[in-house]
Amino acid sequence: MPVKYRNFRNYVPWLLLILEVVFIVLFYFLSSDNDDVSTSEIYPAFQDVNHMVVFGFGFFLMFLRRYGFSSAAFNLLIIGFGVQCSMLIENLLIFLRLRQNEFGLKRIMKATVSMTAVVISTGAVLGKTNPVQLILMTIVELIFFQINQWVNNSLLQVPEDVSMMHVHLFGAYFGLAVSLHFSEPSPRNDKNRSTPKSDLLSMLGTVFLWVFWPSFNSVLAVNNKSKVIYNTYFALAVSAVTAFMLSVLTTKDGKFRMTHIHSAVLAGGVAVGYSARSINYPWIAMILGLLASMIAILGSYSLQRCLHPTLKIHDTSGVHFTFGLPGVLGALAEVILLVI
Amino acid sequence: MPVKYRNFRNYVPWLLLILEVVFIVLFYFLSSDNDDVSTSEIYPAFQDVNHMVVFGFGFFLMFLRRYGFSSAAFNLLIIGFGVQCSMLIENLLIFLRLRQNEFGLKRIMKATVSMTAVVISTGAVLGKTNPVQLILMTIVELIFFQINQWVNNSLLQVPEDVSMMHVHLFGAYFGLAVSLHFSEPSPRNDKNRSTPKSDLLSMLGTVFLWVFWPSFNSVLAVNNKSKVIYNTYFALAVSAVTAFMLSVLTTKDGKFRMTHIHSAVLAGGVAVGYSARSINYPWIAMILGLLASMIAILGSYSLQRCLHPTLKIHDTSGVHFTFGLPGVLGALAEVILLVI
Amino acid sequence: MPVKYRNFRNYVPWLLLILEVVFIVLFYFLSSDNDDVSTSEIYPAFQDVNHMVVFGFGFFLMFLRRYGFSSAAFNLLIIGFGVQCSMLIENLLIFLRLRQNEFGLKRIMKATVSMTAVVISTGAVLGKTNPVQLILMTIVELIFFQINQWVNNSLLQVPEDVSMMHVHLFGAYFGLAVSLHFSEPSPRNDKNRSTPKSDLLSMLGTVFLWVFWPSFNSVLAVNNKSKVIYNTYFALAVSAVTAFMLSVLTTKDGKFRMTHIHSAVLAGGVAVGYSARSINYPWIAMILGLLASMIAILGSYSLQRCLHPTLKIHDTSGVHFTFGLPGVLGALAEVILLVI
Repeated sequence: MPVKYRNFRNYVPWLLLILEVVFIVLFYFLSSDNDDVSTSEIYPAFQDVNHMVVFGFGFFLMFLRRYGFSSAAFNLLIIGFGVQCSMLIENLLIFLRLRQNEFGLKRIMKATVSMTAVVISTGAVLGKTNPVQLILMTIVELIFFQINQWVNNSLLQVPEDVSMMHVHLFGAYFGLAVSLHFSEPSPRNDKNRSTPKSDLLSMLGTVFLWVFWPSFNSVLAVNNKSKVIYNTYFALAVSAVTAFMLSVLTTKDGKFRMTHIHSAVLAGGVAVGYSARSINYPWIAMILGLLASMIAILGSYSLQRCLHPTLKIHDTSGVHFTFGLPGVLGALAEVILLVI
Repeated sequence: MPVKYRNFRNYVPWLLLILEVVFIVLFYFLSSDNDDVSTSEIYPAFQDVNHMVVFGFGFFLMFLRRYGFSSAAFNLLIIGFGVQCSMLIENLLIFLRLRQNEFGLKRIMKATVSMTAVVISTGAVLGKTNPVQLILMTIVELIFFQINQWVNNSLLQVPEDVSMMHVHLFGAYFGLAVSLHFSEPSPRNDKNRSTPKSDLLSMLGTVFLWVFWPSFNSVLAVNNKSKVIYNTYFALAVSAVTAFMLSVLTTKDGKFRMTHIHSAVLAGGVAVGYSARSINYPWIAMILGLLASMIAILGSYSLQRCLHPTLKIHDTSGVHFTFGLPGVLGALAEVILLVI
Repeated sequence: MPVKYRNFRNYVPWLLLILEVVFIVLFYFLSSDNDDVSTSEIYPAFQDVNHMVVFGFGFFLMFLRRYGFSSAAFNLLIIGFGVQCSMLIENLLIFLRLRQNEFGLKRIMKATVSMTAVVISTGAVLGKTNPVQLILMTIVELIFFQINQWVNNSLLQVPEDVSMMHVHLFGAYFGLAVSLHFSEPSPRNDKNRSTPKSDLLSMLGTVFLWVFWPSFNSVLAVNNKSKVIYNTYFALAVSAVTAFMLSVLTTKDGKFRMTHIHSAVLAGGVAVGYSARSINYPWIAMILGLLASMIAILGSYSLQRCLHPTLKIHDTSGVHFTFGLPGVLGALAEVILLVI
């Protein structure tokens, strides 16, 4: 359908232009005060998250052979676009007095953390969507995520730094739901294949995310920041070691598989997202990291064979195993820890 | 002219050795006191700028097929060399009591920001110069830039954090002036071509610079740091979205062009360089970002066809569109804002 | 010996699993109190070191053609593993009251710095070891390094921030000692070759490490942090320029060699590791950087021809020249400076 596709493609610039103009007009009416505060405390944290989401995820998603440029570029596009969109929704909520005003950098930071959900969702539909679909998905997902946040904070009284950690779960399952509507690319064209070179770049991106995960988990923590970083680091360390271990066990030739490392190394960091601030001993974080990594690899081993063919889900970069299942584990762990 | 070139090449090590020895001797006589101050405030900012200029620009300039290694390596060479040179000129000015003493890290940071001008200039002559020419260009450009700084700060009473933002304009037009003296490489040898792989690395470098641009703009700001970061972020976000939009509009097949993204994504950050500290509402920064990105892409679309063939300018990495024109726009915007 | 190798390989997951379980159990008994302190001071420093060791060294060691993935992946594996191991040894020492308790992040940071020794050692045996050997090497090296630290701090009264800088010397010579037991890979199979592409990635890794070296040298400094950063920067700048100079001189065709840049650019940072806090003038640091870079390149030029074939040492990534000899120079310089 090249003609239809070309027509469709023609909408991209006009859609973007109209949305940008709408955004600028809305910012003119809705922009809130921006107090000048000291940046030496918040800026390094903001920069870590920004670096991680824009550069790290762009790198991380770069494993498809024909999709390297698009992964990094679309990632930048939807983040540049989504952060504005998210800020506008937040400004609207502040205007309607449903949320308290905060100063500028903090709001950009929270918008960037929200965008992580969208970026994770794009991982599930990587190589199957065009930019128009990605942009619409970004808007819809951000609106749902803000509603979800509002329900959590106002009705369920969940503190904001915990509810923000829903990004992993929300992003993964939203992405899976969207990917239901896209058919799997035919294996004949090699769009869905990766090369050693692109896998290598993606591996570097994984290492990059691994390094920045403690920043991500701690960035919104109000107190206990040092505990969150400490626990996240241990969970990540154990899940890295476990990922290598299980990768050898589940392959026939006893070699490490890049895709396993890719999906399981970060699982520990996702799993302690909720509970890092309430874990008092590193061994609890370590057990969570071990379990998360196991779930990620064994899940990808078994689910990809049974469940996904039945449901016709095609999850390009395995976000279900990297972010979905470890997120569920983390939520369970948090509940258990609260009960104890 | 391989023989002549080899002879020429033989000068490189001796030139470098003599200059290094001269530098060490001059530092022996000129080094100023280095008070020990707390680094927790300034070091993260210094590190961001250092990371951006050395790693980010090395990455960014890596798009030529045969020039990947040289881009990153020469970038390191001229920065290692140029920062020493810039520090020496500054030490001399302090010695002559034309400038006040500042503490060590701050002076390295300012030297690194000055080097951005040289790095931008090398972008215009990429693949056409040898190391000796690059080193001579570095020395000459730094001297001119310091004179320019001195005129700005002492005679025109421009504050230093604003005059430092001349680096983009100065670097771009100095680079264009230098590139006038080099003929365009013949299209027969493919020195001037890029490959998808090298474009991909360069794209990653662009994303990297995008992430660090708010640090760069805010690093020398004395107050209003948080406002500078906030406005720069919005200008960058809008110019990223606009770059994608215009890239589709100006290509026939409706696809994104890496070179467009490469040159226009950063234009917003350059354009608000001067005025970020005086913009009170994000929508002004957003409009500037929109205009800067438009100028960068439409400029590259029209100028590259009309003006450059007439003037015989060959601007390898399009620094005129990425840094030159948005810098002019930024200067105009600052004047307009000051008048209002 | 594919069958033997496969059997051997089968041990990897079980060895890792048993060690992880042992670690978790030991952490259950040994974990010390983790006071909650402000992270705004220490976290950026911690993050720089973490980023440098995990991402930077993974990148840096990526120059072997067939070993790109393994370099980055094994680096992550041994760091995730080694940091836990190092923390446990430290917890044991605290439990035995041989060392004072410190708060959590600081201990992870010191464990990461200790792991640099192991990462440097792996550079010497790159491409010749399997994961089991790497893990055993990590454990043995960390135990020896902790003994070395204890001797330095308790018996010789060397302050901790100085003794930590033994990582370069210790890592390089431990790595060489280990590599004695591995035969050089036959030149027939091209395991030991690099490609332009992998060299390019490795060059980017070198630039990355260059940027973060001042953080590494200053991270454990108790006072004079700004002086350490200042001196390290100058030593690095001079050794970068010198590396390019000598690279042209020692090659026949007058071109820059990536391997020279790779090994000599960082030599200055290694050499001032010990003495950066006691150097009062930048020219001393510059001379050290010049000498270190010379030693690194001339050493690799002459030793690789004479000494290594005699001793049958095969040092894959030249850690002897990058970290060993400049470390010796730095130790000598520190002694001379103390005497003066």
